[in-house]
Amino acid sequence: MGKSSLMTAEPVTRQDQVLQAAARCFVEEGFHGASMSRIAKAAGMSPGHIYHYFESKEAIISDIVRREEIDARAFFDQFRECSPSELISNLMSCVEEGVQSNTDTFHSVLMLEILAEAARSSKVMTIVQEVDKELRDNFANTLKERLDLEDAHGRVEVMFALFTGLAIRIIRNPGLDRTRITHHMRQVLSNLLTQSNEDEREHLSVASNA
Amino acid sequence: MGKSSLMTAEPVTRQDQVLQAAARCFVEEGFHGASMSRIAKAAGMSPGHIYHYFESKEAIISDIVRREEIDARAFFDQFRECSPSELISNLMSCVEEGVQSNTDTFHSVLMLEILAEAARSSKVMTIVQEVDKELRDNFANTLKERLDLEDAHGRVEVMFALFTGLAIRIIRNPGLDRTRITHHMRQVLSNLLTQSNEDEREHLSVASNA
Repeated sequence: MGKSSLMTAEPVTRQDQVLQAAARCFVEEGFHGASMSRIAKAAGMSPGHIYHYFESKEAIISDIVRREEIDARAFFDQFRECSPSELISNLMSCVEEGVQSNTDTFHSVLMLEILAEAARSSKVMTIVQEVDKELRDNFANTLKERLDLEDAHGRVEVMFALFTGLAIRIIRNPGLDRTRITHHMRQVLSNLLTQSNEDEREHLSVASNA
Repeated sequence: MGKSSLMTAEPVTRQDQVLQAAARCFVEEGFHGASMSRIAKAAGMSPGHIYHYFESKEAIISDIVRREEIDARAFFDQFRECSPSELISNLMSCVEEGVQSNTDTFHSVLMLEILAEAARSSKVMTIVQEVDKELRDNFANTLKERLDLEDAHGRVEVMFALFTGLAIRIIRNPGLDRTRITHHMRQVLSNLLTQSNEDEREHLSVASNA
C-alpha cells in the first residue's frame, strides 16, 4: 500500500537513475512511445551507454516491478510480529497513507502501463504474477497466524482489489475526496478483518449445496 | 458492474462491427500497436472504408467508452424505484455477476488500454471522466434517496474502487477464487450500505478538529 521508494528517493546508483527516468518516460509517452534512446537521454547518458545497465525496455520494466516488491514486502513485514489488536490498529492507521499513495496519478499511470505491457509480454507477466503471489501469500499468512482468520487469501484479494482500484478511481475522478474515502475504507477493512469464520462456513456450505 | 453488450452481442451495425474489431485489436496489440488499417482488416472492410465511420482511433475509443456508459446506466437504473430492502437485496444478488464480469481478462485489458490512452489524450480523458461522473452521480443519488445515506458519493467511490480493482487482480492473480471473493464482497458491500450516518458524523468531526 506504500509509496515506491524508487520514485521518491534521490537516485543512488546509475541503475536507479535509469529506472526513474524510464518511469517518467513510460508515464509521459507510454511504454511503446518511449524508446531506449529517449530513456537514455532522460537519464543523462548516451544511447549506447544505457545498454550497459539494461538490455531492453522489458528488462527495465521488470526491474521496476521488482523494486516495488521490495517496498511492499517491507510494508507487510512490519505486521509479522504484531499481537492481534496491534495488527488491526496498525493496519487501520496505515489506511490514510494507503489512500494517498494509491491515488497518486504518476503511480497510477505507471501501473497501467506495466499491466498493459504484461498483457502482451509473457516475461513481464511472469514477473508481475510472481511478485503478486509472493506478496499476497506473505500477507495472508500473517493474517492467518495472527488473527486466526479462515480464508485469509480471499480477504487479502478483496483488500488488494480495494486499494488497487483507487489507482483507477483517481484517473476517472481526479476530484475524489480522500478524507471521506479513508473513512469508508477503514470501515470496510475493519469488516474484512473481523468477519466471523462462522458466517463463512455457513455461506460456503450453502454455496456447495446449491 | 455488468458485462458490455458491445463485446458479447452479435454486431448489428457496421459501427458495432468496427468497435468490436477495434476492441480485439487494442487488447491483442495495444492501442498504439493497432493501426486503423489493421482494425479495418479485422472488421472485414477496406482501409479507406473505415474512415467513413470513424475519423481516428481516438474516435473509436471514445465510442467504446460511450457504449459502456449505456450498459452501466441501464444497470444502475434498475435500482431507482426500489424500496430500501429491495435495493439492498437486489444489489447483493448482483455481486456474483459483478465479480464474474470484472474478472474477465478481455474486459480488463481493454480497460487498461483505454485508461492508459486517456492519460495521454485529453479528448479521451474528458469522455472517460464525464461518463464516470454521470454514472457515480446517478448511483449516489439513488442510494441517497432510497436509503437515506449520508455521503453516498464517498460510499459509491469505494464500491467502484472495489469492483474496478478486480480487473487488476485478475491480471496479477489469474487463479483467484471467484466464489470466495464473492462472499467477502457481499459482506463489504452490505457494510458500505448500512454503515450508520452517526459513525460518519463522529469521524468527520474528529477529522475536522484534528
